[in-house]
Amino acid sequence: MTNAASIDSASRDILRCDGARLWDSLMALARIGATPAGGVRRLALTELDGEARRIVIDWLRDCGCSIRIDPIGNIHATRPGTEDLAPIGIGSHLDTQPNGGRFDGAYGVMAGLEVLRCLDDHDIRTRHPVNVTIWTNEEGSRFTPVMMGSGVYAGAFTLEHCLAQHDRDGRSVGDALVAIGFDGRDTAPALAAYFEPHIEQGPILEAEGITIGTVETALGQRWFDVLITGQDAHAGPTPLAMRRDALLAAAHLIAAVRRIAEEHPDEARGTVGQLDVTPNSRNVIPGRVALTVDLRNARDETLSRMVEALRAECAAIAAREQLGIELEEVVYFPPCRFDPALVGMVEQAARRLGHSHRRIASGAGHDAVYVARRHPAAMIFVPCEGGISHNEIENAEPEHLAAGTDVLLEAVLAFDRGAV
Amino acid sequence: MTNAASIDSASRDILRCDGARLWDSLMALARIGATPAGGVRRLALTELDGEARRIVIDWLRDCGCSIRIDPIGNIHATRPGTEDLAPIGIGSHLDTQPNGGRFDGAYGVMAGLEVLRCLDDHDIRTRHPVNVTIWTNEEGSRFTPVMMGSGVYAGAFTLEHCLAQHDRDGRSVGDALVAIGFDGRDTAPALAAYFEPHIEQGPILEAEGITIGTVETALGQRWFDVLITGQDAHAGPTPLAMRRDALLAAAHLIAAVRRIAEEHPDEARGTVGQLDVTPNSRNVIPGRVALTVDLRNARDETLSRMVEALRAECAAIAAREQLGIELEEVVYFPPCRFDPALVGMVEQAARRLGHSHRRIASGAGHDAVYVARRHPAAMIFVPCEGGISHNEIENAEPEHLAAGTDVLLEAVLAFDRGAV
Repeated sequence: MTNAASIDSASRDILRCDGARLWDSLMALARIGATPAGGVRRLALTELDGEARRIVIDWLRDCGCSIRIDPIGNIHATRPGTEDLAPIGIGSHLDTQPNGGRFDGAYGVMAGLEVLRCLDDHDIRTRHPVNVTIWTNEEGSRFTPVMMGSGVYAGAFTLEHCLAQHDRDGRSVGDALVAIGFDGRDTAPALAAYFEPHIEQGPILEAEGITIGTVETALGQRWFDVLITGQDAHAGPTPLAMRRDALLAAAHLIAAVRRIAEEHPDEARGTVGQLDVTPNSRNVIPGRVALTVDLRNARDETLSRMVEALRAECAAIAAREQLGIELEEVVYFPPCRFDPALVGMVEQAARRLGHSHRRIASGAGHDAVYVARRHPAAMIFVPCEGGISHNEIENAEPEHLAAGTDVLLEAVLAFDRGAV
Repeated sequence: MTNAASIDSASRDILRCDGARLWDSLMALARIGATPAGGVRRLALTELDGEARRIVIDWLRDCGCSIRIDPIGNIHATRPGTEDLAPIGIGSHLDTQPNGGRFDGAYGVMAGLEVLRCLDDHDIRTRHPVNVTIWTNEEGSRFTPVMMGSGVYAGAFTLEHCLAQHDRDGRSVGDALVAIGFDGRDTAPALAAYFEPHIEQGPILEAEGITIGTVETALGQRWFDVLITGQDAHAGPTPLAMRRDALLAAAHLIAAVRRIAEEHPDEARGTVGQLDVTPNSRNVIPGRVALTVDLRNARDETLSRMVEALRAECAAIAAREQLGIELEEVVYFPPCRFDPALVGMVEQAARRLGHSHRRIASGAGHDAVYVARRHPAAMIFVPCEGGISHNEIENAEPEHLAAGTDVLLEAVLAFDRGAV
C-alpha cells in the first residue's frame, strides 16, 4: 500500500481514473427513473430516489466507506484516512428535474465514487479521510427550497423549516424521508475542503473547445415576481392613445431586462423566463401580465445596480403606459467566490494533466455554493452537448467526464499532500 | 292611422321611443342567462339562446310581425308596409360572449322591437315593411366563424360549411339548431336598407361626451398566428450573446406591432392579445413563443402596408436574434364603408333630434359589415361605460340607449319617406 503523502509531487505518477467504469456507473444509475426519451425523472425523496441512494451506498460501501445519514437525508460516505484530520469532501446530488438528464448531479457523485475506486485500485491511503456526500433535493422540483440538503448543512435554512415543506400532494419532506428510510440521526461531518464536479449546463466550454472549467465564482441571483395591471379592452374599438396595454408594458420590460444585462459588467445575466397573460384572447388588449425577472452577476455591488436599474425601468414604463407595475423580490442568493487556493489547485491539476482549461463563472446554483459558506470549496466543470441541461437530451462526452474526474482526483491528492 | 309617407318632413312631429319600455325589455332579456356578477352568459344555439329567441319572437308577434326562420337560424320578423317594397331592416344578435354583458347585440334587437312598438303606439303605417332580424351566432364563442348568420346571409360562407361546424363537445351547428327548434326552411328576405344600433364597445363617445356615433366605416382586420422558435437554455449559465431567446424576440415584435399602428394613418390599430411561452419556467430562457397579431385599418391599402411592415419586422428580428419566426394569416376582413346615403340619414336624424354626434369608425366586426356586402347598411353607436364590453360589467345609460333608438326610428322613417 502506498502512502500518498510520501510521494513527492514532482516525481509521482499521474493517476487516471477508469473512464469506462465511470461511464458504466453513470449509465447504470441513469436506468433508475429512465424516460423513453433517454432522460431521467427521479424526483427528490421518491421511491426512485430511494432506490438510487441505496445502490450508490452499496457501491460506496464496497470502497470501504462508512455511511452516515443526517436528519435532512444527506448521505455522507467516508473512506478513512491515515491521520486524524477532517475529510476532504466530494459531492453532488442524485435527484433530477421532472424531465432531467443523466448527468446533472449524478456526475458529481459518480466522479466521487470513481475517485475512491481509483484510490483502492492503487492501494493509496490518504492522510485525510475522503468523503463523498449525496445532498438531498438539490433541484427543488418537488420540494422548495432548492439545494435543501446543502442549505441545511450550511445553516442557510433550519432543519425544521425544511422538514415541514410539502409537495403538491401535501406530502412533507419529513414524511417522504421516513417513507424511503432516509430520516437519519447522524451528525454531518465538518470538511477540510469540498470539491464538486458538474457538467457546465452552459455552452461556453463546448463553444471554445475547452475540457475543464475552473469555477471561480457562482453568480449572485436576484429573482422577482412582476405584476403589470392595465385595463382589458377590445382590440378593435380602442384607440392606441387610450390603451393601458399590460403586454406592451411587459414587452418594454423584457427588452429593458436584456439591456440592463448588456450594460453591466461582471458576467451580468438578465432573463424573463415566465410570462402569463390575462385574459389571453386574440382580440382583447391584455389587462394583466404576470412575469418573472431573473438577474445574475458575479459581484454583489453590480447586482444591486442592476436591481436599481430594473426598478427605474418599471417606474418609467408604468408612468408612460399609465398602468401599475408591482415588483416583489422572491429569491436572493449573493454571489459566491470559491476558495482561491482550491481553485488554484483545480487549475494546477488540469495543467498537470494536460487538459485545456479556463476560469469560468457558474451561472446556476449548486450545492457547492452553500457548502462554500461553511468550508473552502471549489467546482470543476466539464462540457455538455449544446450547453443543454434540465432536459432529457442532456449529453456529455465520456472523455470529458473522465478528464474532470482525473482533475478531481489530482486536486484531492494535492490537497491531501498539504499543497494548500 | 297615420300614413308616414303623407307627413311632410319639415312640419311633422318628431317621434320618440319609450325609453323606460326599452330598458325594461333589455332587463327582461338579460335575465335569460344572467350571471351573478350582473352579466349574461348565453352562448349561441344553447337552450338559453333558444329561450331568448322564443320570448323575443313573442314580443315581435305582438307587434303584428310575421316570423320567418332561415336555414342558418336567422329570425326575420316583418311588420307589413303599405306598398310592395323590400323591407327596411333593423337587426343584431342575442348570443353573448361566455362572460358577456347585457347590451352587446341585445340592444340592437330591442331597439328594433321598440321602433315597431312606437310605430304601433302612433298607428303609423310605413310604405316599406319593417323587418327586425336576429342573426345567429354573432360572437363566435361556441362556434366559428364569428358573424355566422349574417355571413351566410351575405354569401361570405356557405350554409353547408356553417352547419357542419362543431363546438368543443363535438356538437354541430346543424344539430344545435334542431335541438332548439330553429332549423328553419324559410327564405331570408332581401332588404331595401339595413340599420344596426349597437353600443360602441370602445371609449371614444364617452370620453368626448357625445351621444350618437354615426358609423362611417368598419375597420378591416388581418389576424396572424406567429410562432417564434429559439432554443431553451438555462438562464444562469448561458451568456447573453449565445442566447436564442424566443420571448425577447416576442417583446421586440410586440413593440413593433404598436409602432406599426402608430406610424400608419386611417385609424390604424395593432394588438398582441394572446401569448404563450414554452417552457414558461422562471430560470429557463424560453425556446418557443406562440402569439397572435391583430392589425386593423379603415383602408385596405394602408392595411396591406401594415402587413408588409409586420413581415419585415419579423424577418429583421429573426435574423438579429438568430431564431425562426413563422407568420400565418388566419383571418382577413376587408374594411367596410357603410352606405353614404344611409350614414347621412343617421347623421341628419341625430341633428334633428338635437343629439351630439360624430362620425366614427367601428373597430370591431358586426353583422352589419356582412349585410353591407348585399344591401345598403349603416350603424348607430351609443356610448358604453368606460368603453368596456365583452365583460359582465358592460354598462350603458338608459338615456343613451333611448337616444340611439330615437335616431334609428327617425332614420327608418326618413328612408321610408324616400329621403334616400
